[in-house]
Amino acid sequence: MTETESSQISKKAGLPPGTLIHIGNFHTDRTDISITRYDDSEYGEHAPVSADEIPGFLGRPGVAWINITCLAQTDIIAQVGSIFGVHPLIQEDILNTRQRPKMEDYGSYIFVVMNMLSVEPDEGIVSEQVSFLLTPHAVISFQEQPGDVFDSVRKRLQSKKGRIRQSGADYLFYALIDSIVDNYFVVFEWIGEVIEEIEDELVEHPTPEILRTIYALKRDLIYIRKVIYPLREVVSQLHRGDSDLVDPSILIYFRDVYDHVIQLSDYVETYRDMAAGMLDIYLSSVSNRMNEVMKVLTIIATIFIPLTFIAGIYGMNFEYMPELGWRLGYPAALGIMAVILVIMLMYFHRKEWI
Amino acid sequence: MTETESSQISKKAGLPPGTLIHIGNFHTDRTDISITRYDDSEYGEHAPVSADEIPGFLGRPGVAWINITCLAQTDIIAQVGSIFGVHPLIQEDILNTRQRPKMEDYGSYIFVVMNMLSVEPDEGIVSEQVSFLLTPHAVISFQEQPGDVFDSVRKRLQSKKGRIRQSGADYLFYALIDSIVDNYFVVFEWIGEVIEEIEDELVEHPTPEILRTIYALKRDLIYIRKVIYPLREVVSQLHRGDSDLVDPSILIYFRDVYDHVIQLSDYVETYRDMAAGMLDIYLSSVSNRMNEVMKVLTIIATIFIPLTFIAGIYGMNFEYMPELGWRLGYPAALGIMAVILVIMLMYFHRKEWI
Amino acid sequence: MTETESSQISKKAGLPPGTLIHIGNFHTDRTDISITRYDDSEYGEHAPVSADEIPGFLGRPGVAWINITCLAQTDIIAQVGSIFGVHPLIQEDILNTRQRPKMEDYGSYIFVVMNMLSVEPDEGIVSEQVSFLLTPHAVISFQEQPGDVFDSVRKRLQSKKGRIRQSGADYLFYALIDSIVDNYFVVFEWIGEVIEEIEDELVEHPTPEILRTIYALKRDLIYIRKVIYPLREVVSQLHRGDSDLVDPSILIYFRDVYDHVIQLSDYVETYRDMAAGMLDIYLSSVSNRMNEVMKVLTIIATIFIPLTFIAGIYGMNFEYMPELGWRLGYPAALGIMAVILVIMLMYFHRKEWI
Amino acid sequence: MTETESSQISKKAGLPPGTLIHIGNFHTDRTDISITRYDDSEYGEHAPVSADEIPGFLGRPGVAWINITCLAQTDIIAQVGSIFGVHPLIQEDILNTRQRPKMEDYGSYIFVVMNMLSVEPDEGIVSEQVSFLLTPHAVISFQEQPGDVFDSVRKRLQSKKGRIRQSGADYLFYALIDSIVDNYFVVFEWIGEVIEEIEDELVEHPTPEILRTIYALKRDLIYIRKVIYPLREVVSQLHRGDSDLVDPSILIYFRDVYDHVIQLSDYVETYRDMAAGMLDIYLSSVSNRMNEVMKVLTIIATIFIPLTFIAGIYGMNFEYMPELGWRLGYPAALGIMAVILVIMLMYFHRKEWI
Amino acid sequence: MTETESSQISKKAGLPPGTLIHIGNFHTDRTDISITRYDDSEYGEHAPVSADEIPGFLGRPGVAWINITCLAQTDIIAQVGSIFGVHPLIQEDILNTRQRPKMEDYGSYIFVVMNMLSVEPDEGIVSEQVSFLLTPHAVISFQEQPGDVFDSVRKRLQSKKGRIRQSGADYLFYALIDSIVDNYFVVFEWIGEVIEEIEDELVEHPTPEILRTIYALKRDLIYIRKVIYPLREVVSQLHRGDSDLVDPSILIYFRDVYDHVIQLSDYVETYRDMAAGMLDIYLSSVSNRMNEVMKVLTIIATIFIPLTFIAGIYGMNFEYMPELGWRLGYPAALGIMAVILVIMLMYFHRKEWI
Repeated sequence: MTETESSQISKKAGLPPGTLIHIGNFHTDRTDISITRYDDSEYGEHAPVSADEIPGFLGRPGVAWINITCLAQTDIIAQVGSIFGVHPLIQEDILNTRQRPKMEDYGSYIFVVMNMLSVEPDEGIVSEQVSFLLTPHAVISFQEQPGDVFDSVRKRLQSKKGRIRQSGADYLFYALIDSIVDNYFVVFEWIGEVIEEIEDELVEHPTPEILRTIYALKRDLIYIRKVIYPLREVVSQLHRGDSDLVDPSILIYFRDVYDHVIQLSDYVETYRDMAAGMLDIYLSSVSNRMNEVMKVLTIIATIFIPLTFIAGIYGMNFEYMPELGWRLGYPAALGIMAVILVIMLMYFHRKEWI
Repeated sequence: MTETESSQISKKAGLPPGTLIHIGNFHTDRTDISITRYDDSEYGEHAPVSADEIPGFLGRPGVAWINITCLAQTDIIAQVGSIFGVHPLIQEDILNTRQRPKMEDYGSYIFVVMNMLSVEPDEGIVSEQVSFLLTPHAVISFQEQPGDVFDSVRKRLQSKKGRIRQSGADYLFYALIDSIVDNYFVVFEWIGEVIEEIEDELVEHPTPEILRTIYALKRDLIYIRKVIYPLREVVSQLHRGDSDLVDPSILIYFRDVYDHVIQLSDYVETYRDMAAGMLDIYLSSVSNRMNEVMKVLTIIATIFIPLTFIAGIYGMNFEYMPELGWRLGYPAALGIMAVILVIMLMYFHRKEWI
Repeated sequence: MTETESSQISKKAGLPPGTLIHIGNFHTDRTDISITRYDDSEYGEHAPVSADEIPGFLGRPGVAWINITCLAQTDIIAQVGSIFGVHPLIQEDILNTRQRPKMEDYGSYIFVVMNMLSVEPDEGIVSEQVSFLLTPHAVISFQEQPGDVFDSVRKRLQSKKGRIRQSGADYLFYALIDSIVDNYFVVFEWIGEVIEEIEDELVEHPTPEILRTIYALKRDLIYIRKVIYPLREVVSQLHRGDSDLVDPSILIYFRDVYDHVIQLSDYVETYRDMAAGMLDIYLSSVSNRMNEVMKVLTIIATIFIPLTFIAGIYGMNFEYMPELGWRLGYPAALGIMAVILVIMLMYFHRKEWI
Repeated sequence: MTETESSQISKKAGLPPGTLIHIGNFHTDRTDISITRYDDSEYGEHAPVSADEIPGFLGRPGVAWINITCLAQTDIIAQVGSIFGVHPLIQEDILNTRQRPKMEDYGSYIFVVMNMLSVEPDEGIVSEQVSFLLTPHAVISFQEQPGDVFDSVRKRLQSKKGRIRQSGADYLFYALIDSIVDNYFVVFEWIGEVIEEIEDELVEHPTPEILRTIYALKRDLIYIRKVIYPLREVVSQLHRGDSDLVDPSILIYFRDVYDHVIQLSDYVETYRDMAAGMLDIYLSSVSNRMNEVMKVLTIIATIFIPLTFIAGIYGMNFEYMPELGWRLGYPAALGIMAVILVIMLMYFHRKEWI
Repeated sequence: MTETESSQISKKAGLPPGTLIHIGNFHTDRTDISITRYDDSEYGEHAPVSADEIPGFLGRPGVAWINITCLAQTDIIAQVGSIFGVHPLIQEDILNTRQRPKMEDYGSYIFVVMNMLSVEPDEGIVSEQVSFLLTPHAVISFQEQPGDVFDSVRKRLQSKKGRIRQSGADYLFYALIDSIVDNYFVVFEWIGEVIEEIEDELVEHPTPEILRTIYALKRDLIYIRKVIYPLREVVSQLHRGDSDLVDPSILIYFRDVYDHVIQLSDYVETYRDMAAGMLDIYLSSVSNRMNEVMKVLTIIATIFIPLTFIAGIYGMNFEYMPELGWRLGYPAALGIMAVILVIMLMYFHRKEWI
């Protein structure tokens, strides 16, 4: 997941600041805009909407949520940016979907960029950048791909459940961020299951396959940490309430999100510790099994090599070997072998090898 | 212990904030309320009490300790919350029993959430979330399960030992938190014993079983650290005395609790260091034993393989092998073998293998 | 890359401060000066320019970019230094091309020293020190070698793209620093590719060659970290805007550079974690493969050593060995061997070795 | 040393704060009090003294050092505590001899608790808790056991050497703390010797015994770190001089103690680094030796197994084996064996195994 | 280098503060004083000088550099101390040559203690403590041994090169400290060479000798870190310019020294990381080589053990073994062996062992 990141950003090396090029993993050829307008009494979803139509949805009481999906058409992003008076560097940040999570307060609008994580059946953890612009009466969200974790927000908007319809853009802004953070727990749940599976196999069957799984897990956690740690600062800034755009009554909700992000940081550290621990156990288990293999070899070889030697002695063809002519030579030889066997077994028993 | 945590929390992903659903490990179908009312002269225990009866115990001089066990009936929690004017997000935190320890001061009440650890004979360390609400004349405690570590507080209340009956709700609040923290030492005592057992076996008998025990110990310590570290901040906030709900004369007791929590943090680090050390020793011991196994194999093989070769030589069936006809051929062959044996033994002795 | 660094600096040990000696890796015998003068309407490149001609380019409206390549002729550096009134210690820092990145504000000029990284086909990552002096109407850049990453800036100057021609020396200063930082992403891209290559081979073919590559990677990352970490402080100082030489309207651009440097720091840590992880996997893979080798040996030896022993028994030449005369002795011996073989195979199967 | 610590403290779990029970390792059944009174001209030692007699030694000019040894009789401690008006929680801290080093300033007295380390011939490092109370004209010291490191202070008191007899209780307080800190250097000297012994054996003779010693060393260092780190804060508080009980002219002496404690912290880290390094070297040495063992086995086995096979070939009893009848068959067979031997030796030589 | 440090300091345990005993590694029986007096026009070196003569060199315009070598005669140190009014604890610090680098400003003089490192051909890195006293018109330096790194300063004084002769005692003070710090780079150069040598051998020839070198390197770096880290604080304090004894015009020079010390700290961390990396590579290399050894053994044994078994079969002496009488029995047996050989080789080839 991380290895191709820098490769995208370097594409921009050498361009003047503010040049809009979409940098990211998910490539589609078009950009869709949908607008949800609501107040306490009314509610309407509009899609698709062209960038030209956006101003028509503003300037009326109520809140507008402008959701922009797939960032391929950079001219549309530029048009949206100019409608809301967004600085060219911010427009660049929206398109360069390899940002570090950050929050910037420009007075008339707040810009937040963060990552939406989800677990895909075959691919494992998938990450997508989501940017938000909070203006006094609108929230603009930018996603890289169709499909998101905002369905619960949409349902609450439609059903008037909770206080969302009575509240302003700041509450919607909170609700969207909260739903992304809540979804991180789903990702951690999946990681928890992976860890449990590894643990079950770890001591008994330390196969290279498990090694690969542990390594992939470590990589995922390195990535998730990179995504969650800066988020602490982002949410902390929001909850400190320095901006006029966020009503003080909303701050307690950001405090709640902040607690969740802190908890997620704890999880990351916990899981990293556990992954490190599992690797140690893996190494120890491999050593243990090698030890066991060596013991079997050593026991068998140590017993039979001397016995074979004795057999070899009496397999020699010297003409003058008195023992060969003895009546009891053969049983005596077998007897000596039996004695050696017993001594060897006792020795191994004392060593606790058998 | 940790692996199923996030799975519970993710259940809530997408619900509006303040939706009450009990999230936790211990599931029972009912919620019990018991109330202990006391002042310097009177003392009474009342159980079971219904939520409707609670207001009848308040508004009188003295202190009320409302203890709520098992959080299955969320409507009861909601009712208690509304009696004391508790914010819906706090009610949610009480029911979501996977909180990070924290303290929040809402002016008219203080909310504290922490973990009660205990050692169960077969299960090892068991963790249960306990929440407290401190109001001017009452302490409300929320537990996930029946059975707790508050018996000593109950006895002191009954027997009027110490200053507890002469003091207000803040002292009761302290006494309950203190008894939870005190019980952590019991847990560490148990961990200390586990470590001692491991150490006794570590160098002599590094079995996979011990490896598993070390790994479980590391996991437990990761978990305990996650529980104790945020507690430092919680108790530190209480002892700083910013709230009117806690009398300045009580602060020195929170200072004492704070010292204990710092000491517990030290223990966690110490035990983590020791667990890491034990794993190193384990790996070294396994290597050592493998070395020993290898030496035995090498000594036996190195001695007998050349001897067997000589025996093999004289076991060949060539017609013209002059040595075979010699009178002293056989003793000479045995003699050569003896010389080789002595040289080998001297070599091993010089190498300090035998 | 790092091993010869200190050796150069120690050359200076014992000289009075301000003594100008060029200390660095790249040695050429001359120093070239080129000057680019521009304002909104005019643009001119002048090269080669002698140090005496420099004052002629100053004192006129517009911006002068004085680019000095190869630092062999220390007298030229001293002359340039005296033209701009640069402190002797700064002149020393410019020539001693093993500086830690730093920024110093002397009121009338700002001094910044940093490293320009690039990837050379056969050599891997190459580092070169670049120093900048920002004065009110000129930027002086000092490079160790011809060839740099400023071509994009030159093109923007020539083509009037972006706001560079309308802006002052501070914007040029930003543009040059930005182009160096942007190029770091190219270096990380290359590192990302190296890591991907290693990962593909890691578990399947853990050769010593891969070990060497991992070690080289770790060294490179140690070096890059040393170069990037102090840069955070440098850019942070610039973006804080304490100097009159940088116009407040430019600060947002330094903020952008700062975000990039922070992101680069994240990459360094991420890649270091991954390199450490890969080494663990490498060690585990080697252990795994050794385990496999041991198993093959043990299976073969454990099966055949006892069988060979039985063959040895009946190869003995005792006169009185009744079995030898039996009609079915030979098939019976083979049968016993077959039974032993089956038992062994079952044993190994149960052990999950085969 | 650390494993039994928490077990003692948990004894107290559930008791009301201020309940006096002696918790510690050293158990005797009585408590001894000795008093040393001195001023510039007079000096007197009094022992044993009963708690009732203490007030008689106070209220006169000069300084009283009240040394209380063995803490079994908790009623005596309580009596002493009430004479000096000591808070019950402090009395509890004095008896609970598993405190973290700390300093508390109660205005009329300063409480300091720290650990006295010493090296016992057979037991290694022994730790004992010492508490101090500094009042305007007296120092009260509490020790767990008879025998201490204060003899040098006693001699200086008797001999009037240095300024101790001319100074007040604060200087005595400093002198006692200083003598404990000075003795830590003796402990580190012993650890230094242990490390030197280990190092001498490490690469040449990596026995399990050394492994055990390294592990014990690591445990001791973990413990000592736990004792010294909080001491930095204690002495730093004393040297900052916030208390009226310590004269400003004494502060420079606490500064000196502080420097020593910082130096001791450095030692702990240095020795921990060295212990970690030694374990790495140990593991490497064991691997090296195993490698050597394997080489010997491989060389011997690889040479003789093919030779033995050839001997086996000509030991077969086929009727039609032409070589057996050749005149030069036997020398030819020996010759082939010799050629194989030479090839093998050359191969091993090229591999640098021999 | 570090192991004997604490042993010296513990000698002092129990002495009253200010007792002068020389504690250190280098023992000679006398103490030499030399004085260099200079101003812009005059320059004179005087040696040997007795302590009584020192006041005669003071009180005149110009700067006096009093260099005291070998600290055996503690009475001389005491006499010098009293001439300049130095606190007894400082005199003690000068003689106890195991100090942590520190700087103390006593108003009328500044005390600095630091370490002079050098590389001796056979001993490796040698450390010597140097103390400085800066008074308004004199610098007093205390060295443990004859021979130092101040020759460059002496030459600059003699030759009037640079501004040293025009400046006051503060500049001399700077020049001496700077020459010590500059010499650290020489030490790091040597370490760089050692690392390069190790790296060349590391993967190809991982001998125990290299292991010992890596361990010695780690120890040296642990020591150097202990010496350099506190120096950062020392030089930072000097460069902050809180003292009247250092002229503001000198501060920029201390800033330069500070940059060097920061760079040295970077080197220490870099080299420590590299030493850790080399140990990992060493371990991996040893594992790799063991793997190779095992493979050779396994290939040879696995091929010949079955072949030898077949030879053993036909070496049995049963009377009724039909194959023995076959005409083609012998070639058939050899053929079977050849087939087994080919199968084995193919198997190993598929495993990529050969």
